[in-house]
Amino acid sequence: MKKQLSELTTPALVVQWSDLMQNLSAMAAVRPRDRLRPHVKAHKCTALACLQAEAGHRTFTCATVREVEGMAGVGLGADLLLANEVMDCRRLRSVCEAGARVTLAVDSPETIAAAARGGVQEVLIDVDVGLRRCGCAPAEAGELAAAARAAGLDVRGVMGYEGHAVGVADRADRALLVNAAMKELLEAHRDVGGEVVSAGGTGSYDLNKVATEIQAGSYVLMDTAYAKLDLPFRQAAYILATVISTQRDYAVANCGLKALGMDKGLPDVEDAEVLRCADEHLKFRPYGSVRVGDSVRVWPAHIDPTVAYHTTIWVADDDSVRAIWPVDLRGW
Amino acid sequence: MKKQLSELTTPALVVQWSDLMQNLSAMAAVRPRDRLRPHVKAHKCTALACLQAEAGHRTFTCATVREVEGMAGVGLGADLLLANEVMDCRRLRSVCEAGARVTLAVDSPETIAAAARGGVQEVLIDVDVGLRRCGCAPAEAGELAAAARAAGLDVRGVMGYEGHAVGVADRADRALLVNAAMKELLEAHRDVGGEVVSAGGTGSYDLNKVATEIQAGSYVLMDTAYAKLDLPFRQAAYILATVISTQRDYAVANCGLKALGMDKGLPDVEDAEVLRCADEHLKFRPYGSVRVGDSVRVWPAHIDPTVAYHTTIWVADDDSVRAIWPVDLRGW
Repeated sequence: MKKQLSELTTPALVVQWSDLMQNLSAMAAVRPRDRLRPHVKAHKCTALACLQAEAGHRTFTCATVREVEGMAGVGLGADLLLANEVMDCRRLRSVCEAGARVTLAVDSPETIAAAARGGVQEVLIDVDVGLRRCGCAPAEAGELAAAARAAGLDVRGVMGYEGHAVGVADRADRALLVNAAMKELLEAHRDVGGEVVSAGGTGSYDLNKVATEIQAGSYVLMDTAYAKLDLPFRQAAYILATVISTQRDYAVANCGLKALGMDKGLPDVEDAEVLRCADEHLKFRPYGSVRVGDSVRVWPAHIDPTVAYHTTIWVADDDSVRAIWPVDLRGW
Repeated sequence: MKKQLSELTTPALVVQWSDLMQNLSAMAAVRPRDRLRPHVKAHKCTALACLQAEAGHRTFTCATVREVEGMAGVGLGADLLLANEVMDCRRLRSVCEAGARVTLAVDSPETIAAAARGGVQEVLIDVDVGLRRCGCAPAEAGELAAAARAAGLDVRGVMGYEGHAVGVADRADRALLVNAAMKELLEAHRDVGGEVVSAGGTGSYDLNKVATEIQAGSYVLMDTAYAKLDLPFRQAAYILATVISTQRDYAVANCGLKALGMDKGLPDVEDAEVLRCADEHLKFRPYGSVRVGDSVRVWPAHIDPTVAYHTTIWVADDDSVRAIWPVDLRGW
């Protein structure tokens, strides 16, 4: 007899297997093999990354040194891009020496020096394509590439995340922004060279025709923010919670701020209006009847910082537990 | 030679020892011994709870079964209040059987039944005093107490958290709200009986003259939200981060949504305007000069969900590490 979801300690992070499989195959159909470099920051789970590898993807994107270490540790280190600037590369040296291929984003002389000092052999020049976060100006990319080569590093190409575009609701508007951003990235690429033009995310996975690889992560689990777009991916992850109190006009479930990333606002609850969230409480107004002890599904607004609160992903076939996956890439 | 903060992997949760000591003694001076029931949800750290015990507090408040288990496990189980409704009390039975004293909040026939079924012997009747979250109406408290006694439970008294009052900026307004709330709690207490009237938080620790014990948690580490009030407690906790990119008019540090509770908004950075936060990025406009590789202190807006992201508290004397504390009460 399989463990039932009703037996779990709540709140619990649950992923519906069938929805996950659908998301993996929908993405692989459009972005097969190395045309997708799945971003593991969205799920922080090597068991899930293994499924992405089974779906044909051999290269991965990471956001932290810990993610690189963890992925290399389970044998998924064939081609890891740490798509972020890192000043402390000490631990990356051991990962490289153990045989993993690690490529690091750099956008300044300081991060180039840190990469060289840290024993990383390969870099991408990170270019600001309009997000206004990290990344050099397109016109500076060539000079940085020369500096990286002079420091003994191999420059594989460029990276430029159009994060200001991927969440735009209207598809035509989104496409315009993506194209404008990629024009800037190509300008930088002309000066940098190399075979890699890395960009994109879940919202631009099929719109971005320029990138040689797309760094999508959220597509595999999704959240309510991405669900508002016209994407073929299903919301596969929710927090299973228990109703602990009911009043005349609202109810309270045991899923609060320590189980949910809140930067994109309140989560959704089916057939209910969500009112407030506190450390261990979610207050909502159910449209129907709800009783103390009932289970509710809470759909996070932003999947990445939600997953980072949980130690375990409970993989479900409907109401029964199919697998238990550690969220083993947390921390830094 | 002591480890220096500059050697830490960032982002890292740092607590300044001197500020922590100041907060412990300022609180113990006003609320000595059992007149404070420190809430461990704010720090989730038994090493810090041990210091609260050394400061004279023998009783503790918890928000989750995990917190109760962890506190009992380190010998701090003399009198633990789980100040929340819980439907799944299975693990509380073992904690009680191992000798800890556990009191549970109840606000419905269902949560009373769960307590009795789970082997918990003592309860408080949780009363809604205006927060509108959990808790019964004051007029229903007597009836619930009778039901609890009929189920074989000992009713130690009442609990009513004036959470709608504790964050009010104006002290006089706050006092009025606290008093109104406590009038309701006393009404309930008349019908319930028992020696415990448990209420309060950091914002009302000295204003609440009715509660026999105050459930303050945030006072010990503080955050930018509570720092806006007229409290004698210092901001003792910050996230140490590293600048990874600088541009003409802003800089980016490696402290993002997975290191910060975001429900109360953006964190603060000294001498800077904080602009945006992403998964692993904090974008800010420094008033002075900032270079790649510099350390910055990031002050969280809400301490509880911030601590819950971290495995470790680095306790510091200025720039050197004095102690390393596991955040061992995370999860559920």
